[in-house]
Amino acid sequence: MHTCTKANLPRVDALSEPFINRLRKAVAIPSISAEDERRQDVFKMGDFLASELEAVGAQVEKRYLGKQPHKEHLDLPPVILARYGNDSSKRTILVYGHYDVQPAKKEDGWATEPFELSIDEKGRMYGRGSTDDKGPVLGWLNVIEAHRIAGISFPVNLLMCFEGMEEYGSEGLDEFVREESRRYFAGIDAVCISDNYWLGTEKPCLTYGIRGCSYYSVCISGPSQDLHSGVFGGSAQEPMTDLVRVLGSLVDTHGVIQIPGLMDLVAPITDEEKAIYTDISFTMNNLYESLGSTTAIFDDKERTLMARWRYPSLSIHGIEGAFSSPGAKTVIPAKVIGKFSIRTVPDMEPDDVDKLVFKFLKDEFAKLGSKNTLEVSLQHSGKWWVADPKHWNYSAASKAAEHVWGVKPDLTREGGSIPITLTFEEATGKNVLLLPIGSSTDGAHSTNEKLDKKN
Amino acid sequence: MHTCTKANLPRVDALSEPFINRLRKAVAIPSISAEDERRQDVFKMGDFLASELEAVGAQVEKRYLGKQPHKEHLDLPPVILARYGNDSSKRTILVYGHYDVQPAKKEDGWATEPFELSIDEKGRMYGRGSTDDKGPVLGWLNVIEAHRIAGISFPVNLLMCFEGMEEYGSEGLDEFVREESRRYFAGIDAVCISDNYWLGTEKPCLTYGIRGCSYYSVCISGPSQDLHSGVFGGSAQEPMTDLVRVLGSLVDTHGVIQIPGLMDLVAPITDEEKAIYTDISFTMNNLYESLGSTTAIFDDKERTLMARWRYPSLSIHGIEGAFSSPGAKTVIPAKVIGKFSIRTVPDMEPDDVDKLVFKFLKDEFAKLGSKNTLEVSLQHSGKWWVADPKHWNYSAASKAAEHVWGVKPDLTREGGSIPITLTFEEATGKNVLLLPIGSSTDGAHSTNEKLDKKN
Ligand SMILES: [Zn+2]
Ligand SMILES: [Zn+2]
Ligand SMILES: [Zn+2]
Ligand SMILES: [Zn+2]
Repeated sequence: MHTCTKANLPRVDALSEPFINRLRKAVAIPSISAEDERRQDVFKMGDFLASELEAVGAQVEKRYLGKQPHKEHLDLPPVILARYGNDSSKRTILVYGHYDVQPAKKEDGWATEPFELSIDEKGRMYGRGSTDDKGPVLGWLNVIEAHRIAGISFPVNLLMCFEGMEEYGSEGLDEFVREESRRYFAGIDAVCISDNYWLGTEKPCLTYGIRGCSYYSVCISGPSQDLHSGVFGGSAQEPMTDLVRVLGSLVDTHGVIQIPGLMDLVAPITDEEKAIYTDISFTMNNLYESLGSTTAIFDDKERTLMARWRYPSLSIHGIEGAFSSPGAKTVIPAKVIGKFSIRTVPDMEPDDVDKLVFKFLKDEFAKLGSKNTLEVSLQHSGKWWVADPKHWNYSAASKAAEHVWGVKPDLTREGGSIPITLTFEEATGKNVLLLPIGSSTDGAHSTNEKLDKKN
Repeated sequence: MHTCTKANLPRVDALSEPFINRLRKAVAIPSISAEDERRQDVFKMGDFLASELEAVGAQVEKRYLGKQPHKEHLDLPPVILARYGNDSSKRTILVYGHYDVQPAKKEDGWATEPFELSIDEKGRMYGRGSTDDKGPVLGWLNVIEAHRIAGISFPVNLLMCFEGMEEYGSEGLDEFVREESRRYFAGIDAVCISDNYWLGTEKPCLTYGIRGCSYYSVCISGPSQDLHSGVFGGSAQEPMTDLVRVLGSLVDTHGVIQIPGLMDLVAPITDEEKAIYTDISFTMNNLYESLGSTTAIFDDKERTLMARWRYPSLSIHGIEGAFSSPGAKTVIPAKVIGKFSIRTVPDMEPDDVDKLVFKFLKDEFAKLGSKNTLEVSLQHSGKWWVADPKHWNYSAASKAAEHVWGVKPDLTREGGSIPITLTFEEATGKNVLLLPIGSSTDGAHSTNEKLDKKN
């Protein structure tokens, strides 16, 4: 069986004390990549991971990426590369994960110490990094060890690539992956990334698509400094008046994007694709729970999931330069910058999207007849990614997951971006599988992050 | 001559060294009412003012207002009451001013120390409080002294009321004025307030009107917490989408308020009133200079000044709860609060304005067909004020100003609110005159605040 899944062993192994102890030690290292004063802990976590990998029999290399851009006083933590198995008759799977974590403080609302693994009676293991992404990373070590203990030969060769800067934008990784695709990663057959989540809590998923994101700024300016509305209200054209009108023209309450031509870029849906959505284990109540409200656009599962995964969406995030504090201030802001982004899907080319967006905003602004100045810019864009879920990488993973969980995993996509996915696909040219380990309630990036033992 | 103006003496007096030294001592006391740790300096300034008043022959009382609401560890500084003259054959003028100042720090961009009076070669006296409002307050002492030195009997009885909390909302003053209107202030004939500015720099003004202000919050909420736009974009109705649409419906680029019925509340303009605007010394370049741009709504003086003073205006100030920092954040804000205000004019009753605003916002929101929740509230409202500029209080002041400056002062109004004006008018029932001392370029509340010696 050629598969990238670690799930093809008796589940009882995952519960064994040594595995939990390893996670406990990892969680105890506060490897927060975003905090300068924690950088030494990120290095410490890299060392810990490297020595644990060696202990299970992998060949390990630490690869240093130099100084951190814009923070030259900091060294970037190493990428930990590891190889397990080198049998040319087996497929080679490249595995990605990250060993850094989001910041966490007890006072933010954690019920337990964030950097102490706490296990409750339901087998929920609480601690920063438990599900994002130390738990899933150490899962690969668990599965290697479980095979060794059981005396079963490992079904594939594993190449592992674990970085320590994911939560701070994966500084330096893009270039590293492109370089190594011709060296260390040459000869791999597929890629497997465990850094996302099940759609729900009960059924495993394999993720084959991610939306892209194009993020824009609309700046409208007029006077040279903020004005007092008592003194100038009525005599000056106000940039804020123009901005809310322009932003208000982008999308309606029902999520319908008003930019002409934009929807024409979207790939038409096929019957085969439609069928995937019907099967997925998801209910509107799942959505209402995550929203904490019933303010959904659609009232059926299929359209809701398609709107999240395979259709574009436009969100207005906020306005920079206007009054944004509690209370009252009678200011006429001189320069305001609206921020919005479009989640993109196949076959929307980012350049085409930009052109339509820029033209639309200019046209809408022109309609106002304003003397103010409009400037539109793209802040960043990341492309969508979609894999072929009929590839052997997916069918093998699906079989393995079914073996463990007794149920065929759902084929899902993600609404948000995991930019490294596209990097791996483009650099290696191979099929990429996102294999989520944690469940939808794990609270990655939140307080009380956890991983269930069963996962 | 019955007049409230201090300007009816040879101008040379205003330049005399003792007068400047008195202002120098006053500026040196950082009587910042908004900063807790400066409260003792506000008291010190009150003491200084009281003893200076006694020195020129006034009878002085300090009136304490108790603890500061919401900051019970702080005592409110005293209102300094003073009487100069008690001749029943003369009119009695109540004079108002304040001896506290706005915060100021050298590093904010002051060319000189803010709490050291610095005089340049053009006779501009720089220092916090020089024009707002220590300079004008001490001007009353100067004029009393100048009369004494010249041996001219003072033309009116003066009652003075100087507070120390104006820059922090005049805490406690409203009630105090209402109480004292039946006691200390009983028997006054008119009120004179020197706490605003000339329209320009060359021609004196008498101010007979101020717009009111009704400040509103529009809150739109949906999900129970902020959402990630990648995950939820397309599946949830977004409060921010609704809010920009609702805010965008309030007013257009040309300042035309879109709320039905609102303009019907505005008093029609008379021919007499129109004539006042033609005479006022003001050019479009004056406006362009203050804006730092030519993004004006009108291109003629008359309509510009009317739009600032005698017609309502609507300004959108900002949005609370959305992303407002530089950079990019892909948040769907769960709850956003738009802030806007309407400057009101005769005969708009604040209650009527509220009703029209609330109805309009509810109607506009209903049009969206949104499942989100809208809540509208009035944050605060202050009523407009307008006096009869043909009252003897104005004609006397006008004659006096003409005597000093050689030119009839312009009759102006203010776009912004000076709420104490209305309090004095309502409490005393007498004509109120705003007699600006400083010029439009003085920079009250800004860095490098100054007062010209000639003023
Ligand atoms: Zn992660
Ligand atoms: Zn993460
Ligand atoms: Zn003032
Ligand atoms: Zn002030």
